[in-house]
Amino acid sequence: MSDRLFCTPANLATATHQLLAEVRRRSPLTHSITNNVVPNFTANVLLALGAAPAMVDIVGEAGAFAEVADGLLINLGTPTPEQCGAIAEAVPGAALGGTPWVLDPVAVGLLPIRTALAHELLAAGPTAVRGNASEIIALAGLGDGGRGTDAADDVDQALPAALRIATRQPGTVVAVSGDRDLITDGATVVRVLGGSALLTRVTGGGCALGSVIAAFLGVRADIPALTAVAAAHAVYSVAAEHAALACEGPGTFAAHFLDALAAVTPTAVAAQARFEVAA
Amino acid sequence: MSDRLFCTPANLATATHQLLAEVRRRSPLTHSITNNVVPNFTANVLLALGAAPAMVDIVGEAGAFAEVADGLLINLGTPTPEQCGAIAEAVPGAALGGTPWVLDPVAVGLLPIRTALAHELLAAGPTAVRGNASEIIALAGLGDGGRGTDAADDVDQALPAALRIATRQPGTVVAVSGDRDLITDGATVVRVLGGSALLTRVTGGGCALGSVIAAFLGVRADIPALTAVAAAHAVYSVAAEHAALACEGPGTFAAHFLDALAAVTPTAVAAQARFEVAA
Amino acid sequence: MSDRLFCTPANLATATHQLLAEVRRRSPLTHSITNNVVPNFTANVLLALGAAPAMVDIVGEAGAFAEVADGLLINLGTPTPEQCGAIAEAVPGAALGGTPWVLDPVAVGLLPIRTALAHELLAAGPTAVRGNASEIIALAGLGDGGRGTDAADDVDQALPAALRIATRQPGTVVAVSGDRDLITDGATVVRVLGGSALLTRVTGGGCALGSVIAAFLGVRADIPALTAVAAAHAVYSVAAEHAALACEGPGTFAAHFLDALAAVTPTAVAAQARFEVAA
Repeated sequence: MSDRLFCTPANLATATHQLLAEVRRRSPLTHSITNNVVPNFTANVLLALGAAPAMVDIVGEAGAFAEVADGLLINLGTPTPEQCGAIAEAVPGAALGGTPWVLDPVAVGLLPIRTALAHELLAAGPTAVRGNASEIIALAGLGDGGRGTDAADDVDQALPAALRIATRQPGTVVAVSGDRDLITDGATVVRVLGGSALLTRVTGGGCALGSVIAAFLGVRADIPALTAVAAAHAVYSVAAEHAALACEGPGTFAAHFLDALAAVTPTAVAAQARFEVAA
Repeated sequence: MSDRLFCTPANLATATHQLLAEVRRRSPLTHSITNNVVPNFTANVLLALGAAPAMVDIVGEAGAFAEVADGLLINLGTPTPEQCGAIAEAVPGAALGGTPWVLDPVAVGLLPIRTALAHELLAAGPTAVRGNASEIIALAGLGDGGRGTDAADDVDQALPAALRIATRQPGTVVAVSGDRDLITDGATVVRVLGGSALLTRVTGGGCALGSVIAAFLGVRADIPALTAVAAAHAVYSVAAEHAALACEGPGTFAAHFLDALAAVTPTAVAAQARFEVAA
Repeated sequence: MSDRLFCTPANLATATHQLLAEVRRRSPLTHSITNNVVPNFTANVLLALGAAPAMVDIVGEAGAFAEVADGLLINLGTPTPEQCGAIAEAVPGAALGGTPWVLDPVAVGLLPIRTALAHELLAAGPTAVRGNASEIIALAGLGDGGRGTDAADDVDQALPAALRIATRQPGTVVAVSGDRDLITDGATVVRVLGGSALLTRVTGGGCALGSVIAAFLGVRADIPALTAVAAAHAVYSVAAEHAALACEGPGTFAAHFLDALAAVTPTAVAAQARFEVAA
């Protein structure tokens, strides 16, 4: 309930300022088990932001590492047997170490191996789930998952699904990325406006956000997860807006987006982030 | 025979216009099983162009996905056991779904696992084969494969090899990438002029073209494969020329190439593409 | 002893000129078994420089390829079982072919699988070992490995560790990357000044250097390994300085770094490289 009172646009902006400053100060070790298309971009996003990426996704190392990391992402984009084994270690490792973790159920509903795994992981209680509208709808059992990272549904259509997941799984924040990001803990709904459609023209634009969320969850245990997840989206959106102004297309956008993540100040983000809150 | 009549430079330009417009309109789901060096660049090339990439390369998912995809690339750059298993599913999946597929026999002739696999896959009847001159010569049994992606032979030397493959394997179009791309169905030989040597200084410059071919093959079943393959090369070459004018070296070229793929219009491509046809 | 006499800043500059010219002339086939985050950047660095990358990391192909390659990198960033098998083939393959090889013990000390493997590989006698200060300290048994690619220690702190490794393992050159790179064969200590801190904000900034070292070791057997390793660092540092002047942040830095590697001339590098030598 105190979370709800805390959750005003002004307070979210202040928390975003604090969290970004803290990410820069502490450089959280952000363990990312992600698909084979995006590890490079993900690591570069984390480095640009000021976090420390670590892509430890092999059996025999992932469990111990998740325990000592500050935050963990599990992205199901290409769940090879080796990665599935690493995930099976990392989740209890994170639990043991109190490491917050993010589930990105890429293309859930569409493909069998990740779909079964996504439901199993959801039941294990991630700190946050992040996906596009089609993925969140499929994860909630309300649709078929669209076409993978390419969302067929829009964000507002996914609100019932996001609420259903967050309600059934107390303690899990659900984030739906899109033109107006939607983040909920089942009680409060935060929307983060802005960003750039060019992020959907760069592969890993969504996947890397999952790691940024993990980094933001890893620096201030006293700030509610809902706030930290919203803050991560806000920083990402503001940087995307800066990059969109500097670029000539999706290729130069990607480079400028990394520049913008590195250059943006906590003050600028707090001033430019646009939040809406409904309870 | 009608294909041959159809295949004039003017008709190829018109078809390229239609196909690029159709790729943008339909956003073909382009399933790419590719080597571990280039999935990011490949996905970004497809996204820039307007297609929808999907890098599903695990056993238990690749077969069903190839069936529903619009086009499929199989690139043999790093054929791990997991990928070989995925390929073994994807080929019958593509056959079942009528999905056109492209074989890129990276470094065939030079290395044993991919060489055996390339010959087996060729016998399965891909819609198109794409490689550099050394690879096509090796695949035809006329050479040793050079040094991998780095072609030791030039395009014209590969003409007999390309014709041999296309003749032995009716229904398969063979494309040889180089300074003057060569594409043949065994009867007609199309050359696509232009492009930029900077594409050879960016890893995946050739590999991503394989996915673009798959995307172009996936949107208009009524257009002959020879034409669609040539059109993919033409769009790629025109975008490369635009990028070469905007860049300062291979690093900025890669970013501008993605920008150019996103910006180039069907009209501009049709006007700038340079085809030569011999029958 | 003749190596020590040879090793003056002026002679190192001359050798760097010769080696870069030779890399451009011969385009050494540089076999890189590297982690799943950086193969694309590594290949692009090698291509920009003028070398020929080949990322052959599968069992059944890596051994034969290491034998014919000009240089080999083994980077332990994500040692999957498949890669471990490929490494087990590649090391004897390199020995058989007389191929110089570089070990990059990423995150050694911190994680169990790579730590055991790094010690085993060190005992096999690599031509060079490259790491950050924390990794070299851990490999020497003098520390715990820090936080992975993110060095917690500074370069000078790693001097005793570098000397210990090079002394125990005669014939192995040890390189510590940082703000002032340190390279030693156990007798002479070379420092390469300059570079840019932006390299630490691009994932693979250190890993790709390992492949560049392998390329430089592969072109002139008559030049001492200590000199070739120092030359590789010098070219890398000068290119980084050029890129830092042209960029606006880590994203545009990466693109300009590739441009600079392609553009920098042997003469410019010889003039701008800054070496210090102590014996």
